[in-house]
Amino acid sequence: MRKVRVDLPVNGYDITIGTGLDEELEEYTRAQRFSSKGLVVTDSNVGKIYTERVSAALQKAGVDVEFFTVQAGETSKSLEVAEKIYTRAIERGLDRHSPIFALGGGVVGDLTGFVAATYMRGVPFVQIATSLLAQVDSSVGGKVAVNHRLGKNMIGAFYQPKFVMIDLSFIETLPKREIYTGLGEIIKYGAIYDEAFFRYLEENTEKIQALAEASLEHIIGRSCEIKAEVVTQDEKENGLRRILNFGHTMAHAIEKETNYLRYNHGEAVAIGMCGAAYISREMGLLSEDDTERIVNLIKSLNLPTKADHCREEAIFESTLHDKKTVNGVVHWVLLDKIGHVSEVTEVPEETAKKCMRMILAE
Amino acid sequence: MRKVRVDLPVNGYDITIGTGLDEELEEYTRAQRFSSKGLVVTDSNVGKIYTERVSAALQKAGVDVEFFTVQAGETSKSLEVAEKIYTRAIERGLDRHSPIFALGGGVVGDLTGFVAATYMRGVPFVQIATSLLAQVDSSVGGKVAVNHRLGKNMIGAFYQPKFVMIDLSFIETLPKREIYTGLGEIIKYGAIYDEAFFRYLEENTEKIQALAEASLEHIIGRSCEIKAEVVTQDEKENGLRRILNFGHTMAHAIEKETNYLRYNHGEAVAIGMCGAAYISREMGLLSEDDTERIVNLIKSLNLPTKADHCREEAIFESTLHDKKTVNGVVHWVLLDKIGHVSEVTEVPEETAKKCMRMILAE
Repeated sequence: MRKVRVDLPVNGYDITIGTGLDEELEEYTRAQRFSSKGLVVTDSNVGKIYTERVSAALQKAGVDVEFFTVQAGETSKSLEVAEKIYTRAIERGLDRHSPIFALGGGVVGDLTGFVAATYMRGVPFVQIATSLLAQVDSSVGGKVAVNHRLGKNMIGAFYQPKFVMIDLSFIETLPKREIYTGLGEIIKYGAIYDEAFFRYLEENTEKIQALAEASLEHIIGRSCEIKAEVVTQDEKENGLRRILNFGHTMAHAIEKETNYLRYNHGEAVAIGMCGAAYISREMGLLSEDDTERIVNLIKSLNLPTKADHCREEAIFESTLHDKKTVNGVVHWVLLDKIGHVSEVTEVPEETAKKCMRMILAE
Repeated sequence: MRKVRVDLPVNGYDITIGTGLDEELEEYTRAQRFSSKGLVVTDSNVGKIYTERVSAALQKAGVDVEFFTVQAGETSKSLEVAEKIYTRAIERGLDRHSPIFALGGGVVGDLTGFVAATYMRGVPFVQIATSLLAQVDSSVGGKVAVNHRLGKNMIGAFYQPKFVMIDLSFIETLPKREIYTGLGEIIKYGAIYDEAFFRYLEENTEKIQALAEASLEHIIGRSCEIKAEVVTQDEKENGLRRILNFGHTMAHAIEKETNYLRYNHGEAVAIGMCGAAYISREMGLLSEDDTERIVNLIKSLNLPTKADHCREEAIFESTLHDKKTVNGVVHWVLLDKIGHVSEVTEVPEETAKKCMRMILAE
């Protein structure tokens, strides 16, 4: 078992990573002195065995929960679904100290976190992250949101959970592609922050793909640590936190251009990291060798390096409307070596377009 | 002109109170370095002359704003209307540094603040408060919200404005009843926190009702100061801030029982303060004299002391479901003298009901 402390000035919290965490869930819940009624939001993919385990652990801790099940998939991240959860919370008489638990992946975490952040101006939020992507990405940092039909994550907040549970036994039940998508973000942490971790990934691709427990615990734990180090220095995304956006500017454009259907988030990030690496090289920042290492690691962890069905112009246009774009200036996150981000730089239009062509399949 | 600093540990801000604040609005806006595009949310009651003045001041400060006008009245405080504002913000290309201004009373302030708190996880929010109630209540403290059909302010956040403008020239245009509703909260600040201020109100009822500029500036300024002192000690409403709830437990019940139609908020608070004063007296905390002073000041500022069309049982039941009620225990805010709140106390059911009968018209 491994613990990562997200050491924010206020509202710091623990992430517990391990296999079979029912007792930890019970202990952490009991320690919080929540009101006696709570709600667990989950999705139609999370198996009955897990909801029963969670329900039993919370019951032992003195919290009687009801489950609210949303349809699995991105479409549940909407104001409409949030409103249904508010309704249930009010009908059930949840008060300001009633906990709301997210049991699921990124969609459930983001949606539930948004509801917890806004129900009665904020009630206690707990995340039980079941997908690898949620475990290494959305469970750290407090970013919660729902989508607007005109853009992803346009409506949200910064809201910290009381604690996070990452139970590795959930991962075994994930489809392969769901596992790979988490690996995209894990590679990112090595690339932007920790060359030694990047090397660990290069040297352990087989163990990782076999889901060896020690490897999983290490790569999830180290990813959470890196993200925690970054966000504790910049909770509201004014500076350093931007480095977490490596690969994401093009990823968002690719997801949008393919209607969020062809690539999942981690796959799009993998392609976007290739694009950002190429820009870094073109700008004279990143060596040829390091660029290749990035592309190769992505390939060897079964992630794509090129995007099908995308038009260069649409991708370019789309980056101009990214959420991180301010007054029309795209803030690119680039690397000057593996493990180190270069200043966020303005990139000439021609260079950006050239590198976009490199990641578009013929 | 008077300035009140709301001195929060982070995100502190200034409230400027005076007549004809166009230049202050321009200066404060320029100093913030907002993005060049913004949005002003206002309602159908705010006159064209004011929107033109605001537009011109912001233009001079380098911010090009578009106006989004909602229907005047409580029904606009909904997720549906919020969604329309998000849509317009996205279509207009507002980014993370684009300011959203509220130009109006409490409804516009709460709604706009909620949108600003959640659009792209939070963009700069400015409040130009036009009603007396908004000026002394919702413009300080960062509470923003929309209503759910099952309850008022059920969906919201704590979100601080960048600055607040209180232009007294708006007040002259308010209907009389809108002015009285603001006086309800103003009396509350004297009752819970400042006997000298309470005495000022007793001794200046005529000037106040004549809207004498110096009196207005003083009573608004002092009210904002008191609220600011309270909320800076307790930003997220865990302790001291509860004293601001004096009179509100019954007020919420009365508003609900009369479908939010018969009494506006300040009127309901006035009646609720009478009820809370009676409970304080019954509990042996507040003297007969002080109880009378409260009821008399309310009367002399043209506010009601009894509620029509309310059933005792419904009022009682309703207090059990107040947002401030935790695990079924109603937290009553009581007085032990004018200017000082007694501990928030559990009140026997019979005492609460007896005092409720005192505020119900035959």
